[in-house]
Amino acid sequence: MPDAASATSPTLGFARAGGTPSRAVIGDSEFDGEFVSEFDRDTAVTRREPGVYDVDLSAGWTVFDAVNGGYLLAILGRALADALPHPDPFTITAHYLSASRPGPAVVRTETVRTGRTLSTGQASLLQYDAEGREVERIRVLASYGDLAGLPDDVRTTAMPPAIPPMDRCFGPQDSASDVRLPSSGTPVGGGSAIADRLMIKLDPATLGWALGAPSGKGEMRAWFGLADGRDADPLSLLLAVDALPPTAFEIGVKGWVPTVELTVHVRHRPAPGPLRVSITTRNLAGGFLEEDAEVWDSEDRLVAQSRQLARVRLG
Amino acid sequence: MPDAASATSPTLGFARAGGTPSRAVIGDSEFDGEFVSEFDRDTAVTRREPGVYDVDLSAGWTVFDAVNGGYLLAILGRALADALPHPDPFTITAHYLSASRPGPAVVRTETVRTGRTLSTGQASLLQYDAEGREVERIRVLASYGDLAGLPDDVRTTAMPPAIPPMDRCFGPQDSASDVRLPSSGTPVGGGSAIADRLMIKLDPATLGWALGAPSGKGEMRAWFGLADGRDADPLSLLLAVDALPPTAFEIGVKGWVPTVELTVHVRHRPAPGPLRVSITTRNLAGGFLEEDAEVWDSEDRLVAQSRQLARVRLG
Repeated sequence: MPDAASATSPTLGFARAGGTPSRAVIGDSEFDGEFVSEFDRDTAVTRREPGVYDVDLSAGWTVFDAVNGGYLLAILGRALADALPHPDPFTITAHYLSASRPGPAVVRTETVRTGRTLSTGQASLLQYDAEGREVERIRVLASYGDLAGLPDDVRTTAMPPAIPPMDRCFGPQDSASDVRLPSSGTPVGGGSAIADRLMIKLDPATLGWALGAPSGKGEMRAWFGLADGRDADPLSLLLAVDALPPTAFEIGVKGWVPTVELTVHVRHRPAPGPLRVSITTRNLAGGFLEEDAEVWDSEDRLVAQSRQLARVRLG
Repeated sequence: MPDAASATSPTLGFARAGGTPSRAVIGDSEFDGEFVSEFDRDTAVTRREPGVYDVDLSAGWTVFDAVNGGYLLAILGRALADALPHPDPFTITAHYLSASRPGPAVVRTETVRTGRTLSTGQASLLQYDAEGREVERIRVLASYGDLAGLPDDVRTTAMPPAIPPMDRCFGPQDSASDVRLPSSGTPVGGGSAIADRLMIKLDPATLGWALGAPSGKGEMRAWFGLADGRDADPLSLLLAVDALPPTAFEIGVKGWVPTVELTVHVRHRPAPGPLRVSITTRNLAGGFLEEDAEVWDSEDRLVAQSRQLARVRLG
């Protein structure tokens, strides 16, 4: 049995599989033999002092060598969950200022307002330049509440996406040799280690791009989960909305589609089991596009909605 | 001819009708006989020092005695347009912390990052409590660019809303006596002076609520303009997305629907002429709802998209 390591700073993020509370568990970093998911390990933040959190950005959540924006948002979301008196992001917006790199980073939070049912906070993720100075990578503005405290009424008129059963969908782990989806070993524009962290099964109607025949429609749909089986929670929803291939691939746009801004509404704690993510782009114009994502859980609840503004760099 | 008043602080917002540049005109407050629209007069900010702007929140843009959120966002947007090196909000998010009141306010801006084609800034609107201390009402995070510098390609697949011609739509100024739409004189829950500032003609399919027969569908559509004829510009789009009656009225939800957060993407400078605004709610659940707005100009361009998260207070 490993020695209990006594930590002087609380480390947040080592969550137990099953019944994981949405609020980051504040505790020391003692390893007690329990399962620690990749997501929680790699989004863990250590509070150095109130409002200041150290984090190590993992290289395991890259897409074409860029650290995935949803993974970064989950890190910021975890820090804010600790800093604010409410546990769950209700609405969270990130502006991506410059590309983050794997390695050390710091999150600085500010409490803007605390209320009875909602609190608002701001957070910055910063890294260090060659001279050791802090460079801001991402700034976030968010309002938090308690999802468990919401009334149970559901008058949602939106319908879950029409996506075939999981066994008729495809992911990088599938062996269909003519479907070349990015995986960590595939030299498609660089490393995409994130593919090994995720269980993604794409709707065949939205993987024409992988077969050299993009549909021309700005749509992307998939079953989604974490490869190690960790159930979804409000923080992993922040990853889920930004973890599918870009709709741009299906529109036939080649090249990089970096996110300028991403806003996520978390509307309900997701039930255990796989999620369905459906992304739509309807306004590709002037060198920008929007991606609207919906995340549905196994109980057919619309648990999260997001919109991002992304820049289309042609060629 | 009025005397030219020499101002020691630049006042932004007195814009000329027709060919109004999207960037707030920085100049003194000299009255030179030209038309000053209500919108520009009431969203004017005066730079006290770099990053600090004084403003007087007008009572003319209230809805049921509350200062309209889009009007407030336009004020913040104007200040940021002055503070940042780029003139147009590309993506702007506001969190509404507490209710603003007509009267004096201050906007404090911070430049987060300046780039070649995009800059990012943050802004707060504050008012004063009984002891004269500043109380933050709204915090904004936004990225700005230059709409005029965008390439002209349009691959938008979204279609303009199906709304009848303007002469078949209805607004508060119409004399159909059985259609009681909020106007400044109508005792529907308090003053709604904003109705006198706007030209709104609602699609008959979305005004069942005004006849006591809400459709049950979370939709609201209207032709939209400013009552004094000022053409739309990127800042007035921030007002347009939040100026229609709430979709909640058509869902049959009574009571106040305050905005928690509003994010607007401005995608193109609007052409002159009336706008069409189409708002949809698909996820009313747990005491919250989202309102998705699209704004289309006279050239059938999707010039702005927004989503807000609003709280449903029943009863």
